[in-house]
Amino acid sequence: MTERLIHDHSSSINGNQKLNLLFDAHLLQSAFKQYALKDPKLQGNIYNGRYLIRPLAASDYDHGYVDLLRQLTECGKYSSEDFEKRFSDMKQCVNTYYILIIEDLDSDKQIIGSTTLVCEKKFIRQLGIRGRIEDVVVDHHYRGQQLGKLLIELLTKFAKEQCDCYKVSLECKDNLVGFYQQFGYDHEDKQNYLCQRFQK
Amino acid sequence: MTERLIHDHSSSINGNQKLNLLFDAHLLQSAFKQYALKDPKLQGNIYNGRYLIRPLAASDYDHGYVDLLRQLTECGKYSSEDFEKRFSDMKQCVNTYYILIIEDLDSDKQIIGSTTLVCEKKFIRQLGIRGRIEDVVVDHHYRGQQLGKLLIELLTKFAKEQCDCYKVSLECKDNLVGFYQQFGYDHEDKQNYLCQRFQK
Repeated sequence: MTERLIHDHSSSINGNQKLNLLFDAHLLQSAFKQYALKDPKLQGNIYNGRYLIRPLAASDYDHGYVDLLRQLTECGKYSSEDFEKRFSDMKQCVNTYYILIIEDLDSDKQIIGSTTLVCEKKFIRQLGIRGRIEDVVVDHHYRGQQLGKLLIELLTKFAKEQCDCYKVSLECKDNLVGFYQQFGYDHEDKQNYLCQRFQK
Repeated sequence: MTERLIHDHSSSINGNQKLNLLFDAHLLQSAFKQYALKDPKLQGNIYNGRYLIRPLAASDYDHGYVDLLRQLTECGKYSSEDFEKRFSDMKQCVNTYYILIIEDLDSDKQIIGSTTLVCEKKFIRQLGIRGRIEDVVVDHHYRGQQLGKLLIELLTKFAKEQCDCYKVSLECKDNLVGFYQQFGYDHEDKQNYLCQRFQK
């Protein structure tokens, strides 16, 4: 399955199902290889013999993707058609949305982890690309297996080498600062994050 | 000129020149009207009888846009063709890039101010839209005229009402926190901004 997923480009074959993926799975190959040098539990795109790592697919509404996101924050309710429309709108923004998911092959292909890299096109920095890591979540039944680490390391390598980002940033709560520091993320001197929220 | 700019949609007429704009200038109308209620120096899309506010145009490489950005940070060197390619790639990311510029009508239409709103499509928050204010710059010869305030207020209103953002954020240096607080931006409790930069 590993080879098939990686070698097919825009629509990968996973079992008997044709998947419409958010981005070309083949692009992940270099990040997988680098990660596997440090952690041999990653073989191809399978971690620990059980977890398949791949781009989000248009059909993942039916594999618990939105329910997983609900462990992170409020998602509201929407239909699979709404999901597919948003997926398609993201995909039309070329080289922008990279959502990586973990599928549990032992549990009816449920999605049990996900992280997003969003790439912003700039006019500064030699027409640079600025990356942001967003919406990191691992199902609470699956924590303690280094799956969050796997997602962050893979997407950070991917941002640097595949997307050629000049910087990658993220926002996190106080208790997660140490977690992200191990991957090279840190506070920047005199830099502030400010925000405002709007009521609907 | 104000009426002509606002009423033409995707390609506005500015003087005798057809402009290829990054987004529909007409979408700004509501934000202009709200701003003008508090500051009557804004009439239509002209501020203080001299400054035209409009979306970035594909031809703005020739009106000092990149030189203006150099007052903010390093831009490197690239050609007008490279600029137009990046502009076109941004425009193809529908409902994503909103770059607002200020043109000095008394100075050969030089661009003397700019701010960017980038909208990220989400699966969380009822398929929400998350906004970010980026790359705020006013030419140093033009400071002290409230032009930065104008750009931030317009784009914040635009993000809330036109783009339906559930939140808008930005990053800034310590000395600018007070400036942004006047528009409703503030620190969030226990929230950290972390970053890593990559060498080329």
